[in-house]
Amino acid sequence: MARIDESYRKLQAGYLFPEIGRRVAEFQEAHPDARIIRLGIGDVTLPLAPAIVEALRSAVEELGTAEGFRGYGPEQGYDFLLDAIVEHDYRTRGVEVAASEIFVSDGSKQDSGNIQEIFGRACRIAVTDPAYPVYVDTNVMAGRSGEVDEQGGYAGILYLPATERNGFMPGPPDEDVEIAYVCSPNNPTGAVASRQNLEAWVAWARENDAVLIFDAAYDAFIQDPALPHSIYEIDGATECAIEMRSFSKRAGFTGLRCAYTTVPHALTGSTQAGQRVALNGLWARRHTTKFNGVPYVVQRAAEAVFSPEGRKQTAEQVAYYMANAQHLREGLAAAGFACFGGEHAPYIWLRTPDGLSSWDCFDRLLSETHVVSTPGAGFGAAGEGYVRISASTRARTSSRP
Amino acid sequence: MARIDESYRKLQAGYLFPEIGRRVAEFQEAHPDARIIRLGIGDVTLPLAPAIVEALRSAVEELGTAEGFRGYGPEQGYDFLLDAIVEHDYRTRGVEVAASEIFVSDGSKQDSGNIQEIFGRACRIAVTDPAYPVYVDTNVMAGRSGEVDEQGGYAGILYLPATERNGFMPGPPDEDVEIAYVCSPNNPTGAVASRQNLEAWVAWARENDAVLIFDAAYDAFIQDPALPHSIYEIDGATECAIEMRSFSKRAGFTGLRCAYTTVPHALTGSTQAGQRVALNGLWARRHTTKFNGVPYVVQRAAEAVFSPEGRKQTAEQVAYYMANAQHLREGLAAAGFACFGGEHAPYIWLRTPDGLSSWDCFDRLLSETHVVSTPGAGFGAAGEGYVRISASTRARTSSRP
Repeated sequence: MARIDESYRKLQAGYLFPEIGRRVAEFQEAHPDARIIRLGIGDVTLPLAPAIVEALRSAVEELGTAEGFRGYGPEQGYDFLLDAIVEHDYRTRGVEVAASEIFVSDGSKQDSGNIQEIFGRACRIAVTDPAYPVYVDTNVMAGRSGEVDEQGGYAGILYLPATERNGFMPGPPDEDVEIAYVCSPNNPTGAVASRQNLEAWVAWARENDAVLIFDAAYDAFIQDPALPHSIYEIDGATECAIEMRSFSKRAGFTGLRCAYTTVPHALTGSTQAGQRVALNGLWARRHTTKFNGVPYVVQRAAEAVFSPEGRKQTAEQVAYYMANAQHLREGLAAAGFACFGGEHAPYIWLRTPDGLSSWDCFDRLLSETHVVSTPGAGFGAAGEGYVRISASTRARTSSRP
Repeated sequence: MARIDESYRKLQAGYLFPEIGRRVAEFQEAHPDARIIRLGIGDVTLPLAPAIVEALRSAVEELGTAEGFRGYGPEQGYDFLLDAIVEHDYRTRGVEVAASEIFVSDGSKQDSGNIQEIFGRACRIAVTDPAYPVYVDTNVMAGRSGEVDEQGGYAGILYLPATERNGFMPGPPDEDVEIAYVCSPNNPTGAVASRQNLEAWVAWARENDAVLIFDAAYDAFIQDPALPHSIYEIDGATECAIEMRSFSKRAGFTGLRCAYTTVPHALTGSTQAGQRVALNGLWARRHTTKFNGVPYVVQRAAEAVFSPEGRKQTAEQVAYYMANAQHLREGLAAAGFACFGGEHAPYIWLRTPDGLSSWDCFDRLLSETHVVSTPGAGFGAAGEGYVRISASTRARTSSRP
C-alpha cells in the first residue's frame, strides 16, 4: 500500500493563483467580449529589454555550433553570472558576498519553497501575515503545522499581522521561533521595511539563534536611496540571514526564470545535540542533488541585466511600472478607496469598501470593472478585508482567456 | 536555535559528479597539456539541431515584442508542448495519455528527486542497484533511511542487485515495498528492460498496491522496435506507474533543461486510514506550489523536437552516439575488457580489470589514458567492480579544465 504524504491534505483548497485563473476563465467564458484588465497575478507585461534579447540571440547561436555548445553547467550557476551578481547586486551597495555563497536558480518561488528542506521538521516558523503563500504552504507540506482554522491559519505557525498600525511591516516576535520569513518590498502589501525595522529583525535573529529568510524579489522598485536593498546592508546579517533575489520583476524574467539565493558561509544551524553546521553546505547539497542549473541561454540573459544597456533599459521598465502604480494609487484614492503601498513596490494594497470580504471584493471588481485583483485573504488571515492590485500592467489590455 | 534537517548528514560524501569533477580538475592542473577524453558524466556533446535552434530564435524574437511577450506560463507546461507529447511520445506507440496527466519540468533529475515528496515518510522504497544516485539520496534526505553502511547502502532501503546473471535488469522484490524506482534503458548499466521484465514489474506493483517510478530518460536510444519505450505500453501500468521522460539526451537539452513526468489519473495512493487519493492531484499541488514552469523559449525548443525536421535531426544525433557506443564496445572488447550495455543506451558498463575497485579503475583510466569514466560504486554497492563509459562524446576532445 503506497501511502501518501498526508500533510498535503491539510492544505486549503487550490493554490491561490490557479483559483483566480479559474474564476477569471469562468467570467471570460460568460462574457466573451469583456476586456479584462489583469492586475491580479503580479506578472510583468513589457517585452524583454533589447540588451536581454540580444544576449539570448547570441547564446542561442552559440548552442547551435560545435565550439559554442554547452551541456550541463555548474548547478550553482556559471561564473560569469555569479561574478556579475557579486559586483552589481552587492559590491555597489557596499556588501561583500563571495560567489560560493550564491546559488542561481530558476525562481524565487522555487527557492522560497525549497529552503525549508534544510531545516528540522520540528522547527517552528514565523511569517508576516499576509505573506506570499509559498512560505506557509511548503512548510505545511513538510509537516511543520497542524490543521487549518477557519481564517486559513495553520496551527503551529506563528503569524505576525501586518496592519495599518504597524505600517504593514511587523517587527520580530516575542515567542520562540527558529525560522522567520520576511519580504521587503513586500508582496502583497507593497510596504517596504525601514532600516530600523531590518535592524530589529537582525538583532532578534542573532539573539535567538534564529534564521531570517529575507525575500528581496522586489528590491529594484525601491525609490528612496536611503532604504536598504539587501539584508546584508545590516551589520551582523551574514550570521543570521538567507537572502533571495530574482530577475523576474526587475527585468521581465517571469517567463524566462532566473533568481538566486545567498547563503553566507558564516551562517549556521544546529543539530539536536548542539553541534553547529554551516547552512551553505546543506543548501549546496540540496541544490546539487535536486537541481541541474538554469539554462545557459537564460544565464546569459541574466548577465545582460547587469550590462550598462541592460541596467538602463530595465530601470526604464521599472520606472514605467512605478508610474502605473502612481496613477492607480491616485485614481483609487480619488474614487474614495484607502490605498497603501505602491511607492517602493509594484503592488497597491486596497482596503475593501463596505466591509466586503476579500473574495467578494475580488468578484465585484471583476464583474463590475473587469479588473482582476488578488484577494488579500489568499495571503493570510490578516489580508482579509484587502485586495492586492498589481501595477505591472500595460495600456494594452488583453481579451485572451 | 535553528535546527537543521539531520537526515542530510547521513548522506555519503559529496554528490557523485562534483567529486568526479574535483578529481578531473586536480589531474588537469597537474597535467595541463593532457587532452582529457570525457566519457564520465553522461553529457551530450553535439550542438543543438538546426530545427531546435530555429525554434529558439523565433521564441526569443517573440519575447522582445509587445505582442509576443509571455510572462508566467502554466506551471504544467503550455498546451502546444503537452499536445505534442501526447501525440508523438504516446499516441504513436498506441498509448492514450491525457494532457492533464503530463507535467512539464526542467529536468528528470528534479522530477525523480521531487516525486518522493508526495509519499508518506514511512514508505519503504526499493531501487535497482546500481542506480542513478538521485533516487536514493533524495529519499535519504527525506528521512526514509537509516545510516549508511560500508558499501554505501542505507538501512531501510531495499536494493535489488543488477548483476551479470540477471542481465542487469532485476525483477520485482519479494519483500514488502511501497515505491520502486526502475530505469530503462538503464543508467548506469546500459541494460534495457524486456517487455517480460516490465510486465513482471507491473504485475507485482498491482498485486502489492505499490507505485512504480519508471525513468525512461533514455528511451530514444532503444534500437529494437519490439522493446517498449513507455511503461504504459504494458497493460495495467496506468494504475500503478509514474513515468519520467526527458529531452536531455535525445535532443541535446542537458543545458536547456526540459523533461516531463506523467501521473495517470487512475493512479492512487492511500492514507493511513485506507482512503484512496489520486496521485495526479497531489503532484499537481506540489508542482504548482513549488515550480513556476519551464521557460517559454525552452518549451518552444522542446516542441520543435517533434517537428518532422526535429525528429529527423535528433534521430541522426542519437545514431551518432550509438555509433560511438559500438566503436567503444568493440575497442574495449578487443582490448580484453568485459563490456555490457551500449546497445540500447548511450552507456557501456565495463567490468574493472584485475579486481580493481571502481574508484581505482577510474583513477587508473584517468591517469593512464586520460579517459574520464564514472565509478560504478558511485551508483550503489552492486556497481562496485564496474565503471560506466558514456558514448555521448565527439571526435573533438577538450582540454578545458
